[in-house]
Amino acid sequence: MYSPDVKVIDVGRRPIDDYIFDIIVSFREGVNEVILKGRGDTISKAVDLYWKLKDRLGDSIELVKVDIGSERFRGRTKSYIALRVRRKY
Amino acid sequence: MYSPDVKVIDVGRRPIDDYIFDIIVSFREGVNEVILKGRGDTISKAVDLYWKLKDRLGDSIELVKVDIGSERFRGRTKSYIALRVRRKY
Repeated sequence: MYSPDVKVIDVGRRPIDDYIFDIIVSFREGVNEVILKGRGDTISKAVDLYWKLKDRLGDSIELVKVDIGSERFRGRTKSYIALRVRRKY
Repeated sequence: MYSPDVKVIDVGRRPIDDYIFDIIVSFREGVNEVILKGRGDTISKAVDLYWKLKDRLGDSIELVKVDIGSERFRGRTKSYIALRVRRKY
């Protein structure tokens, strides 16, 4: 579905700093784009994660697109958000 | 900031059905576009509200744009989401 230089980050119950650490490591390893995906209650957390990442990385990242949707997840229909974040340099 | 036929819906602690009712009434009264705004924890609720509204109104509405941002609100920096929803007919 996505090329290997794109990584999907499923935002769950881990602390936001853990995700930030993972993303920074991924960028260093050559990933060009991350998709921050939040479902249901973690939609808000995905948006917070984006802003904390932006505070940390500043102009070296850009928000390419924000999608929202609704999908079956573990047997229930849940809203989701997908924030596509690209590394610029 | 917005024209009179645009209404901002601040998503807070009221039940989702209350917001749906308000939006349907607004559309009947001539509002062409609503902006569903969620802040912090209510970001997820704003996305859920959009999907419940979509279930109810189907193709008569369309999602024009999804913006996310970060702003000062009651003295704290908070993430927000703004979902622009337009009535098509």
